Amino acid sequence: MLRHVILLFAVVVYLTESLSIVNPGPQYPPTKGSIWPRPHQQTQTDSYYKLNPSTFVITEKGKTCDILKDAIDRYMKVLRNTYLIVEKYSRKLSRHGSDADNFDDNFKGTLQELQINLSAPCETYPHLDMDEKYSLDVAKVSVLNSDSIWGVLRGLESFVQLFYMADGYKNVLINATQIQDFPKYTHRGLLVDTSRHYITVPTLLKTLDAMEMNKMNVLHWHIVDDQSFPYKSDMFPQLSDAAYDPTMVYTAVDITQIVSYARHRGIRVLPEFDVPGHTSSWGVAYPNILTKCYSLGRELGLGPMDPTKNITYKLIGDLIREVQERFPDKYFHVGGDEVELDCWISNSEIRDFMKDHNMTDASELHSYFMANVIPLLGDRSKPIVWQEVFDEGVSLPSGTIVQVWKNTEAREMQNILSGGYKVIYSSSWYLDHINGGGDWAKYYGVDPREIVKGSVPEDKEVDILGGEACMWGEVVDDTNIISRVWPRASAVAEALWSGHKYETMPYLRHWYQFREDSAHVVSSRLEEHACRMNRRGIEAQPPNGPGFCVTGNYF
Amino acid sequence: MLRHVILLFAVVVYLTESLSIVNPGPQYPPTKGSIWPRPHQQTQTDSYYKLNPSTFVITEKGKTCDILKDAIDRYMKVLRNTYLIVEKYSRKLSRHGSDADNFDDNFKGTLQELQINLSAPCETYPHLDMDEKYSLDVAKVSVLNSDSIWGVLRGLESFVQLFYMADGYKNVLINATQIQDFPKYTHRGLLVDTSRHYITVPTLLKTLDAMEMNKMNVLHWHIVDDQSFPYKSDMFPQLSDAAYDPTMVYTAVDITQIVSYARHRGIRVLPEFDVPGHTSSWGVAYPNILTKCYSLGRELGLGPMDPTKNITYKLIGDLIREVQERFPDKYFHVGGDEVELDCWISNSEIRDFMKDHNMTDASELHSYFMANVIPLLGDRSKPIVWQEVFDEGVSLPSGTIVQVWKNTEAREMQNILSGGYKVIYSSSWYLDHINGGGDWAKYYGVDPREIVKGSVPEDKEVDILGGEACMWGEVVDDTNIISRVWPRASAVAEALWSGHKYETMPYLRHWYQFREDSAHVVSSRLEEHACRMNRRGIEAQPPNGPGFCVTGNYF
Repeated sequence: MLRHVILLFAVVVYLTESLSIVNPGPQYPPTKGSIWPRPHQQTQTDSYYKLNPSTFVITEKGKTCDILKDAIDRYMKVLRNTYLIVEKYSRKLSRHGSDADNFDDNFKGTLQELQINLSAPCETYPHLDMDEKYSLDVAKVSVLNSDSIWGVLRGLESFVQLFYMADGYKNVLINATQIQDFPKYTHRGLLVDTSRHYITVPTLLKTLDAMEMNKMNVLHWHIVDDQSFPYKSDMFPQLSDAAYDPTMVYTAVDITQIVSYARHRGIRVLPEFDVPGHTSSWGVAYPNILTKCYSLGRELGLGPMDPTKNITYKLIGDLIREVQERFPDKYFHVGGDEVELDCWISNSEIRDFMKDHNMTDASELHSYFMANVIPLLGDRSKPIVWQEVFDEGVSLPSGTIVQVWKNTEAREMQNILSGGYKVIYSSSWYLDHINGGGDWAKYYGVDPREIVKGSVPEDKEVDILGGEACMWGEVVDDTNIISRVWPRASAVAEALWSGHKYETMPYLRHWYQFREDSAHVVSSRLEEHACRMNRRGIEAQPPNGPGFCVTGNYF
Repeated sequence: MLRHVILLFAVVVYLTESLSIVNPGPQYPPTKGSIWPRPHQQTQTDSYYKLNPSTFVITEKGKTCDILKDAIDRYMKVLRNTYLIVEKYSRKLSRHGSDADNFDDNFKGTLQELQINLSAPCETYPHLDMDEKYSLDVAKVSVLNSDSIWGVLRGLESFVQLFYMADGYKNVLINATQIQDFPKYTHRGLLVDTSRHYITVPTLLKTLDAMEMNKMNVLHWHIVDDQSFPYKSDMFPQLSDAAYDPTMVYTAVDITQIVSYARHRGIRVLPEFDVPGHTSSWGVAYPNILTKCYSLGRELGLGPMDPTKNITYKLIGDLIREVQERFPDKYFHVGGDEVELDCWISNSEIRDFMKDHNMTDASELHSYFMANVIPLLGDRSKPIVWQEVFDEGVSLPSGTIVQVWKNTEAREMQNILSGGYKVIYSSSWYLDHINGGGDWAKYYGVDPREIVKGSVPEDKEVDILGGEACMWGEVVDDTNIISRVWPRASAVAEALWSGHKYETMPYLRHWYQFREDSAHVVSSRLEEHACRMNRRGIEAQPPNGPGFCVTGNYF
């Protein structure tokens, strides 16, 4: 069977190559009003309405709160801006008058209103188990229903995405549409690394805007690492002596702004303080908490945190309490990846400690370290750890989330699920591994639960809570992070929100695996979505090949 | 010998890997005041001066012209802006007073003046044989000498690059320095493709700013291709029906602006109208000039231009004359790459034509086509062609430049040089082939003349005039072109301006090949240069790994 699939594929490729005639125009003409990520269920008719942003209103018919009021303002602005592009375009081409009334029989007039029925009071902060379900009915008087403010936010995003420009950018239209929608996965994250390069606050806020557009709901903030410590602590101000520069820090005020901005978009901000490895920067102010590494009797430098010293845990514990005050999320990522066990073993004091504690392997020391750190979270937050912590046999509290990032993901996830823990998945979604255009497709064709399907009990599959696209910061900063992440992370966003329902074919995770949607349609949909992001101020790069996007920014 | 080199390399890699201790801070600390590309000869002392932009002046002691006056204004602005960053930084950190006077004995006071001695009248436009040599002496009264306005422009760029921020961004300083400088290669280009994606005029101007900073002197404008025809012709206005959008065109006014902006920076703008392949977009308005392709008797679509019809040549000739009026450069790129000879052969009328003209091979038809097109340039411009035109045996006028882009570059360049033609080189410099950070190094270690050293007579080496970094546009548009090109093209810029003087090791074109400069120093220099570009408004991406750049844009 596999051989037949490969043969068929080879034949298709050969035929495609031999017809090398290129047509003028974009490689994938963008769709019109296709929602990204694809809703669970959507029925669309040919009936359509016009938008007039000066008469159109969004009204609160149920509960309301600051989040909803802010969202209505925000999305009205999006609609007005879409309309402005159309007006500006006509001016640019000196087009007088309008054939706006040359509509066919399917035209049903001007959209009047969107009524929002929120049936329950707003929750304060988004959380892992939040309800994001909504239903939307687009008609002259449209209705958006949800039991949750978070569902309302997702529905508003879908609503504005349904609008499209038509008739040579003369009109903004929307088709009569019914949607029932909810996400397949509850944890749909983006990891941003602000240690390898400092990312400015405005760029982080723009990242949140883009996440909202993709219905992603967790900003995993890998805030410090070996290279720099931009978190500005009040309790330990000297830690940020290891910021790249005194101007390159995140103060309590910055963090509050980011958390609040995210909250208004239904996005959790998950802090990561990675220990005991990736901590060189901690040693600028506190060298004593790090381990001296040796080779052939020569001191090489400082390695991971010293797991034998009480002051190490004291510092971590105090810092965690401060961080918990700034980040309201109920989870806290304590890292635990890539610990240089060799360094620990090279240090005679640590070897002595291991002997005294009957440890024969350095992984036991890692286990000991994490076992001491995790209780420091107290009742305030539950831990998330990188997979090594599980791999090295650390006893973890039930409900702990393990983030899988290595390429042995199938076996790893089976083990974690069997152990009673929960999983978030990242192995295929490292955005720092870059290729030419179209490399979003390799992210797109991955569905974490499909990877373990059949090899774990079905009721365990749901313990894969979701996943994260990871933008490690070695080669991105403010100059390129937005265009590097978007729309590549959009592929992950759709994989996690919509799921794919394809058969498990772990040996083939590529575009030709798409089932419900042909690769062509998905590419065209992403072409529209990237352009939509451009229009909303997100510099998403071209997703596929040749094409264009009318934004109104250049004329 | 080769085996020893590889073994040694393997050992070095192993040792480096085993010491995996990461220090806090940037991977490559930027240099301070290192000029990119490296000057031919530079002597620097420890004596240094302070900049006070409100008293410092640049004066014209020799000839002058609009280009020089404009350049003085521009570079004074650069210096003032550098100074403003320092002031803004102090305000941000609420730093009062200044320890600006805590200078050591090497401090020689405040820089007073830069005298520019231009000994010859300005030329109107930059050209292939322009003189870019200059000498610079930085002292309290500094002197820049050149026999050419183009040399003055290069010298001014070097001058402002010598300034650096010191003492925690408290001061802008410059060291006493003597420079004798000129380029190794005369053609140092960047190809920009505006057909696969439209690039806006402001972004093209910004590209010219960045080229000036890298002493690149040819913008190779691959203006039209299969996908779109953004060139707006007055003679054939319908051609730009194949623009992606009516707003996405380059008018005569746009082109004049771009050519003038480039002229002021000593940059030639070389137009390319690629024929007979890559011409689908021409067929939107003029389908009759393209060839119908067939497979098994079925018409597949339109292929390359039809070489058998007079109207094809009439259209090309008329268009060339219009383009020549808009682009003053003495060269004209007529393309000639990747012609689908199979399409020609599939067409029975073309087969008949070949029979009538005693042609047995489609490459003879390509030859026939180019032989008809090149004379259309008249006396006004000389041709540049892609290598296929040479490969297929087209008889070319002496002095024709052949652009080498395939991977068989050594043999190809030997053949072209033996044939009496000139070469520009691009094979290793396709910027659309992307990898993670640091991939500039693979461009850096290439010197076109070194590739043929020993295999062609020494007096033929100079017929390799230079090369071009090529940014094909499939996956770049305004959102990412600047950060994708810079500082990766800077590596090409230094290879072409400074040369490398390493032994010929065609099997090893990597960073460990650098000789005069260690890879570490070059990386640190490029770190400074990328940051310098950031400060001057060019969003160059991080060149290496972890690091930072204080620009003043984010506070």
